[in-house]
Amino acid sequence: MPHAPTTPRPAVVRFGPALPGLPAVLARSPVRAGTDLARANGALVTFGADPGALATGIADAELLRWVQLPTAGIELFADALDARPDLVWTSAKGAYARPVAEHALMLTLAVLRDLPRRVTARTWQRRSGTSLHGLRVVVIGAGGVALETVRLLKTFRTHVTVVRRLALPVDAADRTVVQEHLGSVLPDADVVVVAAALTDATRGLLSRDALALLRPTAVLVNVGRGALIDTDALVDALRRRRLRGAGLDVTDPEPLPDGHPLWDEPRCIVTPHTADTQEMIEPLYLDRIRINLAAFAAHRDLIGRVDVAAGY
Amino acid sequence: MPHAPTTPRPAVVRFGPALPGLPAVLARSPVRAGTDLARANGALVTFGADPGALATGIADAELLRWVQLPTAGIELFADALDARPDLVWTSAKGAYARPVAEHALMLTLAVLRDLPRRVTARTWQRRSGTSLHGLRVVVIGAGGVALETVRLLKTFRTHVTVVRRLALPVDAADRTVVQEHLGSVLPDADVVVVAAALTDATRGLLSRDALALLRPTAVLVNVGRGALIDTDALVDALRRRRLRGAGLDVTDPEPLPDGHPLWDEPRCIVTPHTADTQEMIEPLYLDRIRINLAAFAAHRDLIGRVDVAAGY
Repeated sequence: MPHAPTTPRPAVVRFGPALPGLPAVLARSPVRAGTDLARANGALVTFGADPGALATGIADAELLRWVQLPTAGIELFADALDARPDLVWTSAKGAYARPVAEHALMLTLAVLRDLPRRVTARTWQRRSGTSLHGLRVVVIGAGGVALETVRLLKTFRTHVTVVRRLALPVDAADRTVVQEHLGSVLPDADVVVVAAALTDATRGLLSRDALALLRPTAVLVNVGRGALIDTDALVDALRRRRLRGAGLDVTDPEPLPDGHPLWDEPRCIVTPHTADTQEMIEPLYLDRIRINLAAFAAHRDLIGRVDVAAGY
Repeated sequence: MPHAPTTPRPAVVRFGPALPGLPAVLARSPVRAGTDLARANGALVTFGADPGALATGIADAELLRWVQLPTAGIELFADALDARPDLVWTSAKGAYARPVAEHALMLTLAVLRDLPRRVTARTWQRRSGTSLHGLRVVVIGAGGVALETVRLLKTFRTHVTVVRRLALPVDAADRTVVQEHLGSVLPDADVVVVAAALTDATRGLLSRDALALLRPTAVLVNVGRGALIDTDALVDALRRRRLRGAGLDVTDPEPLPDGHPLWDEPRCIVTPHTADTQEMIEPLYLDRIRINLAAFAAHRDLIGRVDVAAGY
């Protein structure tokens, strides 16, 4: 019986520091583990890779067709994308949604239930706090983290409005509005969770004017990127008690410098961009790589394909 | 046309301080709002009622058949129950499950994600934290709060073991074991949530020996009653880093006195029995009263009937 014609197995190389578990994933995949970026068909960028070196390394890689990035956002790798817009670029968008949305929920509950003053208390204080049940929540963004956040929020019978770029309803939400209508939904919000990508269209979206629309009882949570919020305006709003509180896993600038006024706001929780730690995301990134290696070898669509024009 | 025979409408009185919303609920119910406990058929105990006065007041109330208590636990009213074991007693058990389970989840996530040191930080710290996703959780109790806690935990794909008095499986859990087997499930637990009633059978359930079975990475959360845990043993375990941390909404003694060593444990979050605040529970208690007034007038089973022998 004649053999079926053999398809050459594509060569994929790791770019960046070693990633425990990656050799095993490559060994069980339908691709060859290459060693030379210049002759590879695909590149798997690992955590801690140098973006500048990536841009240089791929510039003349003639056989390269695909680059997998390890982060959900692509800002760090903008130069590399600019250098080779002809390639298929995939990010890890959506892959780390679960831990990040979990962190967003934790920050929301912690601010609603006055955790900052509980943690610092050395005496039995008066009871206080607000239940999340039944509140009106605005989620900004409609990517993986935002959708997982909506899923978690709906387990508390909240009313959820998603604010997104596209005029495309999110099924799990009670309401979807386009970004231009943000100002019309902020005045009714009990909680606002920012989980959008940082692009030219979203930078400073929570501007001074937007923050001024929030109720003094509103809670603001950011697990997207710090620059989505006007930090100075947020500091003013917290100082003047025009917000109940804030929970920020991302800040602008980041890292938040010592002495920054946000450190001293008693109703602001700052966590050091730790919604998804390295321990949490490594197995999730390996899962994503496993799926995309199989799809790449089979000429199927890859998950997390970057829309270079949209910026995510 | 002859009238149908008239059933006398039962008289129900409020016992304790005024409760906003209660007159409207009574007015729309099928019972009469009585004024005299001595001639009432039912008594609705409100928040802040004097348990001693209740025991005295009901002692000779010959027409009384039912007493509704405003709390989930019945310890406060033990003397009143002892005085009239012939009555139908209902507690608010289950009525406040949602906010209490929400608080249990908040404490769990906050300890897992190192919130105490984030709140007190004045500098950008190293990333750390553990995701709840996929962890093994032991929930102690199978009442309303415990079941709602299981529901919330399952949205994080956790493996949930319920420990209860009765040999009756909880469907939503992955595993149910009877209380006698607590010791066999503690060594594998990443998180233990205590949500049981305080009875002679559960007092000190998390004893020094039981706590010694927990992993040093385990998180202990208590939203039940303080005396379910041996406080001194818990202090020792935290000091000696034999636990990752604890989140306590209830303590023994309670209120936790100033200077108590738990206040100074950096990995222990103490909240002042505030999982369900007055604002959260008043509407939930009115809902429960509404349902039970209708059932009482119709001679149907009441919700939250106290099993005096079991103690809850």
